[in-house]
Amino acid sequence: MKASVPDTRDSVGIVEPQLLRFEQGVTLQCGEVLPNFELIYETYGQLNADRSNAILICHALSGHHHAAGYHHENETRPGWWDNCIGPGKPIDTSKFHVVSLNNLGGCHGSTGPRSTNPSTGEPYGETFPTVTVRDWVNTQAILADALNIEKFAAVVGGSLGGMQALQWAIDFPDRIGHAVLIACAPKLSAQNIAFNEIARLAIKMDSVDGSSDGALPGLGLARMIGHVTYLSDDSMGTKFGREVKSGDIEQGKDVQFQVESYLHYQGSRFAQTFDPNTYVLVTRALDYFDPAMEHNDNLENTLRRVKAKFLVISFSSDWRFSPERSDEIVDALVAAGKPTVSANITSSFGHDSFLMDIPRYFNVLKKYLASVAEELDA
Amino acid sequence: MKASVPDTRDSVGIVEPQLLRFEQGVTLQCGEVLPNFELIYETYGQLNADRSNAILICHALSGHHHAAGYHHENETRPGWWDNCIGPGKPIDTSKFHVVSLNNLGGCHGSTGPRSTNPSTGEPYGETFPTVTVRDWVNTQAILADALNIEKFAAVVGGSLGGMQALQWAIDFPDRIGHAVLIACAPKLSAQNIAFNEIARLAIKMDSVDGSSDGALPGLGLARMIGHVTYLSDDSMGTKFGREVKSGDIEQGKDVQFQVESYLHYQGSRFAQTFDPNTYVLVTRALDYFDPAMEHNDNLENTLRRVKAKFLVISFSSDWRFSPERSDEIVDALVAAGKPTVSANITSSFGHDSFLMDIPRYFNVLKKYLASVAEELDA
Repeated sequence: MKASVPDTRDSVGIVEPQLLRFEQGVTLQCGEVLPNFELIYETYGQLNADRSNAILICHALSGHHHAAGYHHENETRPGWWDNCIGPGKPIDTSKFHVVSLNNLGGCHGSTGPRSTNPSTGEPYGETFPTVTVRDWVNTQAILADALNIEKFAAVVGGSLGGMQALQWAIDFPDRIGHAVLIACAPKLSAQNIAFNEIARLAIKMDSVDGSSDGALPGLGLARMIGHVTYLSDDSMGTKFGREVKSGDIEQGKDVQFQVESYLHYQGSRFAQTFDPNTYVLVTRALDYFDPAMEHNDNLENTLRRVKAKFLVISFSSDWRFSPERSDEIVDALVAAGKPTVSANITSSFGHDSFLMDIPRYFNVLKKYLASVAEELDA
Repeated sequence: MKASVPDTRDSVGIVEPQLLRFEQGVTLQCGEVLPNFELIYETYGQLNADRSNAILICHALSGHHHAAGYHHENETRPGWWDNCIGPGKPIDTSKFHVVSLNNLGGCHGSTGPRSTNPSTGEPYGETFPTVTVRDWVNTQAILADALNIEKFAAVVGGSLGGMQALQWAIDFPDRIGHAVLIACAPKLSAQNIAFNEIARLAIKMDSVDGSSDGALPGLGLARMIGHVTYLSDDSMGTKFGREVKSGDIEQGKDVQFQVESYLHYQGSRFAQTFDPNTYVLVTRALDYFDPAMEHNDNLENTLRRVKAKFLVISFSSDWRFSPERSDEIVDALVAAGKPTVSANITSSFGHDSFLMDIPRYFNVLKKYLASVAEELDA
């Protein structure tokens, strides 16, 4: 019995994160300057001779550079997108060299609120400067420079990751062959912003009073709010129904529905590992994302400059970034005369669908990227 | 200029709340006994000679007995459902005697968490016993006894109020002529429960640490969460869009979207007047409501006993209690052979539609209740 050793037949296997330090620093969109910064990343699959087969993975709200494989033999869970990245998988590491990083402002090893502010000697904490999607794309390009990757065959992301892929196509038209936008939106709706603000206020309750003894930390509550919006009403009904975990309504106070204990668990687990200031920073980046704003809110005009080809995927039950939001992007791309493939996938899993192995979804992604690989070989 | 004097031509005018004390007490569904209790209520319109024209209004989550008219000449805002209750309005006080109360466990004058626990001499606070929809209906019937109203011509409610009207039809089949259920559901979904639990946790963060200096109280945050779920994505987009209230994204931290400042205002105003323990109690009553549970989850069998006729109204954009949830009630009523009128109203205002003067909605309600009045006269 070797149950603790993961089955790595279709896995990228054991991977080791790399850390790069950029002494040149970066000027952020907000005007503040980071005198230097570090980015942590992983790569999977071989870079080909002409360095043309790289795919950049952009992570979403609570993302991590560890997207595939295992850090060591005893790791019980692989990277967050391991079902999609690996030999023979949709993002096929036998064809592509995949780069996955933790974004600037993150809390998993890249420079962020937990890092030391060189001008004070203290951690940045909530004083870490505002970071936008444009800043992420800019620093991802600096990372690509360091890796000697002039152009990505594709930039791929779900949710907030898709926004980065879109921004890549706008800001670096010559450095991206294909943009793959999954469960994405061209900007947040007022409702999206409202849920983010509620999450930030939950976190702020903590920072005012210090950690609440016994109570779920504000970050845990913030995560619970997010989690409910990632799932669909149907999928929650299927998963939890109204099954009562403990207690008896007739007896009064101690009734806990399954869905409550699940969310408690998710919230407190998340709060143990994630940084509240990063959560605030990332939700703000989401709120601010609006590439059409500089073009009088005309997304079609915004997209005229792009040279990338697009794959846009949405999910029927996603009410956070509904298929209609993806259609806004598709319609603007079509109007701007850009090659675009789009697919609305029938799924009951809500926004979280983009992380799931849904046959039609994975098939579309796999076939599309296979044609990208063929382009490279041609 | 007499701008401060309200226009009361189609109003019930100046009304005065009444308080009734019930020394006989009540045994609650959870098994606990309140040795005595008080209910505060208002009435509008004349009770007829045979005492048959009374309509009971059941309030929703944050409801109040003050549903129509003004408490004094200088009151700037009338009762919460004044657009619907008054002479010539859908709930026509020239035809009906309307009774509107603050439910047991409330915080506007009826016995609740702010009341003194006679066994300790201290306010109940969070020790107030669990109250269910069945308990509310039971104590409303005790109030009706005191008012010498043997049977309500109709029991009317939106949202949680509709659940009370449904429970009335089940528990007191001979004491209710018509049940009017607006934006209602036969029980909460897992998603509904999840949002309620998040609201309760926000309140709990407060009670652990005491009131947070400067931060929005947990009750305010809870209200914000509720508020977002009462509106539709579309209506929030129309109302707020992405209009930025203050600050500049390029400048960093101080950007506030309109929707944020609106929700802050709503949340902090609510937190100043409402009681957090009542909020927890009422959301728990919502979670527990499930009249079909005693009948093996068979709503049709549950409804076989009812004698009331039903009007069931839902709203197209309501994602808290969607039209499909009302259809569950309608389908069960039809299957049980009960006279049922149903209307799905096209509206962009989400769950909050039930409080709005939407022409088809108010017309359906008015015509239906006019026929109820004709029945009484026949």
